[in-house]
Amino acid sequence: MVVSLSLRGDVEPFHAMDVLAGANKLKGEGAPVISMAVGQPSDPAPAVVREAAVAALKTGRIGYTDALGLADLRRAIADHYRDHYRIEVAPGRIAVTTGSSAAFNLAFLAMFDAGDRVAIAAPGYPAYRNIMAALGIEVVEIELDGAAYLHAEHLAAAHAEKPLKGVLFASPANPTGAVIPNEALKLLVQTADRLGIAVISDEIYHRLAYGAPDTTALTFGRDVTVINSFSKYYCMTGWRIGWMVLPEKLVRPVERIAQSLYISAPELSQVAAIEAFEATEELEAVKARYAWNRDLLMKRLPKLGFMLAAPMDGAFYAFCDVSRLTNDSMAFAGKMLAEAHVAATPGRDFDPRQGHRFMRFSYAGSHDEMVEAVSRLERWLK
Amino acid sequence: MVVSLSLRGDVEPFHAMDVLAGANKLKGEGAPVISMAVGQPSDPAPAVVREAAVAALKTGRIGYTDALGLADLRRAIADHYRDHYRIEVAPGRIAVTTGSSAAFNLAFLAMFDAGDRVAIAAPGYPAYRNIMAALGIEVVEIELDGAAYLHAEHLAAAHAEKPLKGVLFASPANPTGAVIPNEALKLLVQTADRLGIAVISDEIYHRLAYGAPDTTALTFGRDVTVINSFSKYYCMTGWRIGWMVLPEKLVRPVERIAQSLYISAPELSQVAAIEAFEATEELEAVKARYAWNRDLLMKRLPKLGFMLAAPMDGAFYAFCDVSRLTNDSMAFAGKMLAEAHVAATPGRDFDPRQGHRFMRFSYAGSHDEMVEAVSRLERWLK
Repeated sequence: MVVSLSLRGDVEPFHAMDVLAGANKLKGEGAPVISMAVGQPSDPAPAVVREAAVAALKTGRIGYTDALGLADLRRAIADHYRDHYRIEVAPGRIAVTTGSSAAFNLAFLAMFDAGDRVAIAAPGYPAYRNIMAALGIEVVEIELDGAAYLHAEHLAAAHAEKPLKGVLFASPANPTGAVIPNEALKLLVQTADRLGIAVISDEIYHRLAYGAPDTTALTFGRDVTVINSFSKYYCMTGWRIGWMVLPEKLVRPVERIAQSLYISAPELSQVAAIEAFEATEELEAVKARYAWNRDLLMKRLPKLGFMLAAPMDGAFYAFCDVSRLTNDSMAFAGKMLAEAHVAATPGRDFDPRQGHRFMRFSYAGSHDEMVEAVSRLERWLK
Repeated sequence: MVVSLSLRGDVEPFHAMDVLAGANKLKGEGAPVISMAVGQPSDPAPAVVREAAVAALKTGRIGYTDALGLADLRRAIADHYRDHYRIEVAPGRIAVTTGSSAAFNLAFLAMFDAGDRVAIAAPGYPAYRNIMAALGIEVVEIELDGAAYLHAEHLAAAHAEKPLKGVLFASPANPTGAVIPNEALKLLVQTADRLGIAVISDEIYHRLAYGAPDTTALTFGRDVTVINSFSKYYCMTGWRIGWMVLPEKLVRPVERIAQSLYISAPELSQVAAIEAFEATEELEAVKARYAWNRDLLMKRLPKLGFMLAAPMDGAFYAFCDVSRLTNDSMAFAGKMLAEAHVAATPGRDFDPRQGHRFMRFSYAGSHDEMVEAVSRLERWLK
């Protein structure tokens, strides 16, 4: 019988997810795998969040919500911009999404047509590239070549070569953890605006910077599209709940597309997420543990030959140059999982051209796990 | 500052969702609105499902799962095919998705490229058309013109006019509730296969047929892509959890795209859904109430001038020709909501050309609500 296979279905796999599947399989067979492959907190969601979910399960139906989300959650997110950033954002500009995954897809669909050129940094989060490719958008990967983050000059040079319709950047960044300093962020947003390039700012690792306080790109441009999520700082990965802050003109297009593509984000996660902003004490304790893990990896990884490729300013990743250890980080990651039972992500996910020299370690696990992982790597490399 | 708006973002809104938003607004202002606009059960998920969710919230983290879903849920779904349809499906061919919404998007991306022609029936579920349009797929709407369902002859005629790459149909259907009889389904699948047209069978309203037992399209073609969900029969709309049964060749492409576009379906919903197959007694009681509501509407709606446009064989919808009452079902629905506080969906959602003559009523609410809605309509129309 006829099976139809599209060309665009031939996207690169998200190798971190393949590593996760491999790690889960090994775990299922009883191996004591430590996973540093996937960017997810090992802590559960805060107690108040889980309690709100339990209460909602007891009192009623979990149904569809408005496509842009529950009014109370949109208001709570708008309040967060006032409390955390001292910026006024109307709740009507907030779209609640099924994780940041949905937010990226919605932003790309609402903002760009097939053939439009959109710039991202390499290395960067692979789903940017894969979603855009599936949607027929031309992905312009700007190689950072040792720079910690995307500078206004990078953007201007790429635009001069051939005009760009949009640019997407993240700070703190995945996979490097690099943070764009305020002045550079301002210049980047202003340069994009001057050149007529629409801006998407991925702020999913906000509240996880270890030096300077967070600055949202909205500070420097009211019509930036901001994408954020409850997955990282708020420890709610599997709840699939995130949000966008939209320019007014994009609200209705995003709503229309979301109605058909998602109907709405999971209601239970929406109800629970309202409480997440009340859990700062619990979440700051989790962040303090990340900082402790970070200190450990900053000291120990380079001694093992995993050279830090960028300052670990934020998020919970160490992105390492592994060229002293291997020429093929993909095979190396497979061997490391099978033999040392430590899962990390090959750099290929983040940078198709240079990735074979790099690996990403997530340090969002427990401190004991990090200590154990480092000593396993030490024994294994001997 | 520059705001980028795509052309493809200019999709038709899902009017049912707009009606829902309007109804929620009225309710928020204290109006006693009865919603027959959105296709969702008024019952909560079965008790065992909610209990499993509560237990999962107490015992651990809710995290990412493998992109294709938890192994236990994939196995439970495969078992369902054996138990309910007497068909063997390997768990490896099941993809767990974030509702059927994600399943449609994944099927379209994995199977079709921009410019490919894919046939659907009009009237039909609007998200088919809207998602395909957003993805650049050419939607070929086959007007049923009074036929209850898509026949093999319809498909052959459309293909003869200009070749089709795929066809998507639903049985029981939204918005009509029509069921494709076994012989016609067999002929439709075999005709598609003979003509080299890939088949997607939307089986989201299975277990909600009031006459004949369910037949999956897999019975007549092993390589049909089947889409189903826990939203309807299993009363889990807001949980956003569904599934696909895939031809082997499509498993890996769907997995790769899902990794980047969705990461995974909500884990809590996955854990809970495993129990849904154990709740048959509770769910059959809910279905019995739908049957009771159906009897009421079948008798009363035509007397009010809402003429049934198709036999109400399945699902929980009455699709009515309202041309005796109005020439503009969209304005009529707005007025009905504002004045009678009864929300129903204008036909435009389901059929851009003929929809102005039709309206869809969902009878998934309580019986008391249906009785009250009918008497309000009666008073209002006088």
